[in-house]
Amino acid sequence: MLDTIYLNGAYLSRNAATLHVSDLSILRGYGVFDYFRYRSGRPRFVSDHAARFRRSAEGLHLPLDYTDAELQQIVEELIHRNGGGDGGIRFVLTGGYAEDGYTPRDPNFLALPYAFSQPAEFYYEKGCTVLLHRYERQLPRIKSIDYIEGIRIQPALKRVGAQYPLYVDRDGHVRESDRSNFMIVREGKLIAPVEDILLGITRHHLLKLAAEMGISIEERKVTTSELLAADEAIICSSVKGAMPITQIVSGSTFSNRAFGSPGPFTLQLMEAWKAYE
Amino acid sequence: MLDTIYLNGAYLSRNAATLHVSDLSILRGYGVFDYFRYRSGRPRFVSDHAARFRRSAEGLHLPLDYTDAELQQIVEELIHRNGGGDGGIRFVLTGGYAEDGYTPRDPNFLALPYAFSQPAEFYYEKGCTVLLHRYERQLPRIKSIDYIEGIRIQPALKRVGAQYPLYVDRDGHVRESDRSNFMIVREGKLIAPVEDILLGITRHHLLKLAAEMGISIEERKVTTSELLAADEAIICSSVKGAMPITQIVSGSTFSNRAFGSPGPFTLQLMEAWKAYE
Repeated sequence: MLDTIYLNGAYLSRNAATLHVSDLSILRGYGVFDYFRYRSGRPRFVSDHAARFRRSAEGLHLPLDYTDAELQQIVEELIHRNGGGDGGIRFVLTGGYAEDGYTPRDPNFLALPYAFSQPAEFYYEKGCTVLLHRYERQLPRIKSIDYIEGIRIQPALKRVGAQYPLYVDRDGHVRESDRSNFMIVREGKLIAPVEDILLGITRHHLLKLAAEMGISIEERKVTTSELLAADEAIICSSVKGAMPITQIVSGSTFSNRAFGSPGPFTLQLMEAWKAYE
Repeated sequence: MLDTIYLNGAYLSRNAATLHVSDLSILRGYGVFDYFRYRSGRPRFVSDHAARFRRSAEGLHLPLDYTDAELQQIVEELIHRNGGGDGGIRFVLTGGYAEDGYTPRDPNFLALPYAFSQPAEFYYEKGCTVLLHRYERQLPRIKSIDYIEGIRIQPALKRVGAQYPLYVDRDGHVRESDRSNFMIVREGKLIAPVEDILLGITRHHLLKLAAEMGISIEERKVTTSELLAADEAIICSSVKGAMPITQIVSGSTFSNRAFGSPGPFTLQLMEAWKAYE
């Protein structure tokens, strides 16, 4: 099941999908990726994801030798060969096999299918817990493969019962989660950070949807104190869709905050998102 | 030549040295490494490098299931199987094959031999050119595989004729290069940054050597203006040894500076380093 993957022009069995250890992703963490869902055999927002993937590749000076139409065709073929239905696809473009161990050349391109998975229903009903964590992603507009901090702090999240981090920059602005964006609701307005974050595709469509629903939107910096004083808070990504944040846990530097239960704006957005999707 | 590598308990031909694409280095840039030289079949400072490798692994919560004696034995066997002589060895420990694409498990351990290489003699005689670049390595004490910024700015270095970057933090302190440490000479003192840098093995031994030579040493922050006003500047690493910096190029934010030729302290240290090695 989901046994077919794509690597540099060939459809292979997943077991055969290997890279030589001289690849710059392995030696130097150098690569970009993107990830999107497919439902009933149809990829979701694939042109948005392909465009972002291309921008990420350009940001790391990695040539992506596939047109949008070719990417689209690989996606369709992969979904078809893996039996359609629901799932996810990850594009990966690495620095390639570097002769000197440092200079990128001939990137390796991968497209990998994944089984459909989603956070437990519990977190949509009761909301999730986030941990405020001082960190700034490097090259925040680029979806690089650098998840060192996000992975490194997983044990710290578990210790306090949090599912996700919220990264706080050194000026006290809350930027994003490790694999998600976030927004708050305050005085009837939906407020979403926009500077120095990864511009999420789900974030984009959620804001568009909210605007269509007549919700007023502000895209600007959000301070930690604003988050802690917010009426509601939402975390969003391709995998999560829109999910309520109902607990904010902090290290020593911040105060905790519990929202009780998901608020009306969040519930309205979640409903609308299901229909929109 | 140098055809034998080590992967998870087995000595393999280099061509056969592959990782499955589900490895967390490929998907999430998650891994640590170390690199050291061997000369005439003898590894240089291997216990220092093994100790740092272990600390890096601990920093990313990656279990390293090899004792120091086992690492040492792998190194000796690798050098022996590859015909001795001069070269380099890289240890790599990755996040392993993650079932969920995010949670590390059973790290993959690699030891890879490399042909001996060294910067051209020219740069030791005339000195190298560095480019000041605003950047702070994440987790600076850990030798992770994250070299995204160092690799990404290679074209920018080439454009201004620089061989290496010097990373300047947001407070204007010059910390380190991408794969090297640096120090300055001022009023007869050797001044080396120590906070928020990778603690280089060559840096450590160079400072020890300088102390034995009666040179007075300060380990502390170095500002950009101090660097620009320094009498001499040195870049150092396992691959480079000690190399004079004779040109400092900047973006718009800093001033340029040329030192003319390598200074007396640098030449003395380079001589002593050759003998010490």
